[in-house]
Amino acid sequence: MPDAYSSLILPDVRLMITEEDRHGLSEFCQVLHPVVVATILDELQPREVWAVLDHADLRLRVEIFEYIALRRQAELVDELDKRRLSELLEEMSPDDRVDLLSRMPHDRVEDLLPLIAQAERNDIRRLLSYDEDSAGSIMTTEYASLPAKITVSDALQQLRQQAPDSETIYYVYILNSARRLEGLISLRELILAKPETRLADIMQQDVVRMRVDEDREDVVQELARYNFIAMPIVDADDRLVGIVTHDDAMDVVQEEATEDAYRQGAVEPLKDDYEDTPVLTILWKRGIWLLALSIVALMTAGVLDLYGTATAEGGARFGDAPAELTRTLILLFIPLVMASGGNAGSQSATLFIRMFALQPPDAAVPGTEFHVDRQLVMRELLIAASLGILLAVMDFLVVWLWFGLGVDRSAVVGVTVFLIVILGTSAGTMLPILFRRLGMDPAIMSNPLIAAIVDVLGVVIFYEVAMLLL
Amino acid sequence: MPDAYSSLILPDVRLMITEEDRHGLSEFCQVLHPVVVATILDELQPREVWAVLDHADLRLRVEIFEYIALRRQAELVDELDKRRLSELLEEMSPDDRVDLLSRMPHDRVEDLLPLIAQAERNDIRRLLSYDEDSAGSIMTTEYASLPAKITVSDALQQLRQQAPDSETIYYVYILNSARRLEGLISLRELILAKPETRLADIMQQDVVRMRVDEDREDVVQELARYNFIAMPIVDADDRLVGIVTHDDAMDVVQEEATEDAYRQGAVEPLKDDYEDTPVLTILWKRGIWLLALSIVALMTAGVLDLYGTATAEGGARFGDAPAELTRTLILLFIPLVMASGGNAGSQSATLFIRMFALQPPDAAVPGTEFHVDRQLVMRELLIAASLGILLAVMDFLVVWLWFGLGVDRSAVVGVTVFLIVILGTSAGTMLPILFRRLGMDPAIMSNPLIAAIVDVLGVVIFYEVAMLLL
Repeated sequence: MPDAYSSLILPDVRLMITEEDRHGLSEFCQVLHPVVVATILDELQPREVWAVLDHADLRLRVEIFEYIALRRQAELVDELDKRRLSELLEEMSPDDRVDLLSRMPHDRVEDLLPLIAQAERNDIRRLLSYDEDSAGSIMTTEYASLPAKITVSDALQQLRQQAPDSETIYYVYILNSARRLEGLISLRELILAKPETRLADIMQQDVVRMRVDEDREDVVQELARYNFIAMPIVDADDRLVGIVTHDDAMDVVQEEATEDAYRQGAVEPLKDDYEDTPVLTILWKRGIWLLALSIVALMTAGVLDLYGTATAEGGARFGDAPAELTRTLILLFIPLVMASGGNAGSQSATLFIRMFALQPPDAAVPGTEFHVDRQLVMRELLIAASLGILLAVMDFLVVWLWFGLGVDRSAVVGVTVFLIVILGTSAGTMLPILFRRLGMDPAIMSNPLIAAIVDVLGVVIFYEVAMLLL
Repeated sequence: MPDAYSSLILPDVRLMITEEDRHGLSEFCQVLHPVVVATILDELQPREVWAVLDHADLRLRVEIFEYIALRRQAELVDELDKRRLSELLEEMSPDDRVDLLSRMPHDRVEDLLPLIAQAERNDIRRLLSYDEDSAGSIMTTEYASLPAKITVSDALQQLRQQAPDSETIYYVYILNSARRLEGLISLRELILAKPETRLADIMQQDVVRMRVDEDREDVVQELARYNFIAMPIVDADDRLVGIVTHDDAMDVVQEEATEDAYRQGAVEPLKDDYEDTPVLTILWKRGIWLLALSIVALMTAGVLDLYGTATAEGGARFGDAPAELTRTLILLFIPLVMASGGNAGSQSATLFIRMFALQPPDAAVPGTEFHVDRQLVMRELLIAASLGILLAVMDFLVVWLWFGLGVDRSAVVGVTVFLIVILGTSAGTMLPILFRRLGMDPAIMSNPLIAAIVDVLGVVIFYEVAMLLL
C-alpha cells in the first residue's frame, strides 16, 4: 500500500537526486500514480522536490503538484523563479490555482499576474473575488458545455476537443447563446443515444443548480443528496460560471466535519492539519477558549463565595482552623480546577481523535508509528505547559486580587491549575493513543469521559498541593 | 428550491391521490427529479406513498424509492405483498437492496428470497455475508468490465450493452479470464482513443484497489485521496467483486463524522438521523453514558470525602453547625452536580448541532421552522426529565446508603441533579437554536462552553435546594 511502500522507495529517490539520474527520476514520476509520487515528495526538502519534478513534463508535474497539501505547495513555490512559477500556475486547474494564490503573499501575486496569459488572469481575478465560504471558492471554471441544437455525433466530436481542458466530461452542460443553463446531458446518455439525435431532444431540463454566492456547505449537501458527479454553479443571471466536482465536495465535507469537531471540543478551527500547524497557532486557537472558559469558571467561584458567605455563621467567610480554610478554598475553586483540566484534556483528545480519523489507512509505517506518536505527545505537553502557565498566572492574580485570599492560597490555586492542565492534556493525548493501539475506536474517549477522569485526579492534586503549601 | 417547493406541491399530490388521478400522479413522478419526488413522499402515509408510486413504471419507482431514507424504506415495504416486494427488490441496485434487507425481519427475508431470481439471490446472500463496517458492506456488484484484448470501438459497443446494469460506466475495469483486475480505463480515455486501438495498449496498469474485508472508512479515505469516482474492491485472490462509488463514499464520510461527533459528546452512535430515532433508543444511547460518567463523578465525591475527613479537625466529617453541614455537602457533590448538568447539556448540544449540520439548506420551510424546533425541544425536555429521574434516584441511593448522609441531605443531591439535568439539556438545546436563528454557527456552543454555563447556575440551584430542604 502507498504509504509503507513510499518509505521503501524514498532512499532510491534520494540517491537518484544525488546522482542526478535524469532517466530514473523521469521514470519515477511517470510510472507511479501521481498521488503516490506526491506522498513520497512530502518527505523531501523543497529543493529536492523540484530536482525531481523538473524531470516530469509540465502536465504531469502539475498533476503531481496538485496532490500536494496546500500549505506545502505554498512552501514549494517559494523556491521557484517567476517564469517557472507562472508556467506552473497557467497549467494548474483554476480552483487549485486560486487556492494556492490566496495562500501566497499579496505582493508576489501582483508581481506574477502580468506574466500569466490574459484569459487565465481574468479567471484568477474573478475566482479570487468570491467569499471563502461560498460556492465560488470551491468551483472550477473548466467544465464541458455544448449548444442544444447540435447532434449527438457532433457533440462527441466537440467533447473530444474540450476534454483536455475540462475537469470532467461526464456531465455536459447545455448553454444558450447567453451562456444560460438550459439542460444537462451525461456522457453515458450521449454514448447510448443515436448519433443523429439532437441534444435538445434528449437533454434533461430543469437542471438542479446552485448560485455562486451560496454557502459551500449547502452546495456540498445538495451534491451529496442528488448523488451528482458535479453541481453546476450559476450567477445571478442564471449564467453558468463553474462546477463543483465530487472530489472537491468530499474535501469540503471532511474539512467541515473537522471544523465542527474542533468547535465541539472548544478549539478554534485550524487552516491546516493539526500535525502541520505551528505550535504558536495552536496555542492561540486553544488558549483563547481556555481563557474564556476559565473566566466563566471564576464566575462560578464568585457565586459559590457569595452563597458560602451568606450561609456561614455570622457571615464569616472562613473559620479560623487551618483545615476549614483548606476546605473552603477547595470548595470555591474546585469547579475552576476541574474545568481547566477537563477543557485542556477535551481539546487534546479532540485534536488527536480527529487526526487519527483523517490519516490514510497505512500512515503507520511499521517501526515509525511509535516515533511519530512520541513527537506529537511531546509537542502536546509543551503546549500544555504553556497553556498551564497562562491559566495559572491569570487564576493566581484573580484569586489574590479579586477574591483577596492572600498570596499563599492564591498560589495553591495557581499551582494546582498548572498541574491539572498538564494532567488533562496527558490524559486527552495518551488515552486516545492507547485505545488506538489496542485496536479500539479512540473516539470512545469522549470529552465528558476525559473530563470525568481528570476530575478524580484533580481532587487529589488540589488537596496535596494545599497541604504542601498551607 | 426543493424543500420549500415540496410543501407547495404536497396539497396537489394529496388531492390527486383522493381523486385517483392516474394521469396526474404518473406525471408527478416523471416530471420532477426523483430526489424531489422522494422528499415530497416523505410527508405522506405509507399507503399514500404506494398510491403515488404505483403510477410510475418499475424502473422509475425503484429510482425514487432508492432516494428515500432507509428507516422509512423499511416502513414502506411493510405495506407490500410478497410479489410486489420481490419485483421491487429485483430491480433495486445490489447495495441499496442489501441495506434494506438487513433492516427487515429475518423471517420475511427468508420468505422472500425464493421469489427472487437465482442470480440476484446469490448476489444478496454474498453481500449480506460481509461485515457491516467492511468495504463489502458498501460496495455494489454492478460495475462495467471488459477484456484487455478487444479494440476501443468494440469496447464502446459492449459498454452500451452493459450500461443499463452498471452503477457507473465512467470507469471500466479490465479483467482477465479469472476475473482478476488487470487494468482500468476511463470512458474519457475511451472516447479520446482511436477506435482500432486495443484496450491492453492504453489501459492504466497497477490499478489502486482495496480488499473486500478492509474497513469501509479506509476505503473511503483512499477513494477521496485519489479523487476516484469509484474504488475497485477485490477478494483475497485479487478477483474484482465490486466497486464503491463516490456517492456512497460521501454518505459514509457523513455517517462516520456523525458517529465521531456523537462519541465526542458521549452519545452512543444512532443508526438513523436524530429526528427519526425513537425516544426510547435515545434514552438508552444517552443514559448508558450519563450513568457511567456519574459513577466516575461519585468516585470524585468519595475522594473528596476521604481528604475532607483526613484534613478535618479530629477527623470529624461534619461540624455541628447547619451552615457548615451545607457547605460540606456542597463541597462533596458539586463535581457530581456539575458533571450531570454539563454532560446532559453536551449531549443535547451535540445532537442538535449535528442535526443542523446535516439538514438540507432549505429544510426550514418558511413558517414551519419554529414549529419543528418546538416539537424537538419538547422531546428533548421529556428525555431530560427521564434521564434526570434516573440519575437522581441513583445518586440519592448512593449518597444515602454508601456515603450514609441521611435521607434529607441525600434528597438535596437527588433533587439538585434532577433540576440540573433539565437545565443542562435546556441550555444544550436552546443555545444552538438561538445561535442558528441569529445566523451564527451553532457549533460555537461547544461542549465545554455549555458545561461552563451550566456550572454557574448549578451552584445557585444546589444552594437554593439545600437551603429549602435542610
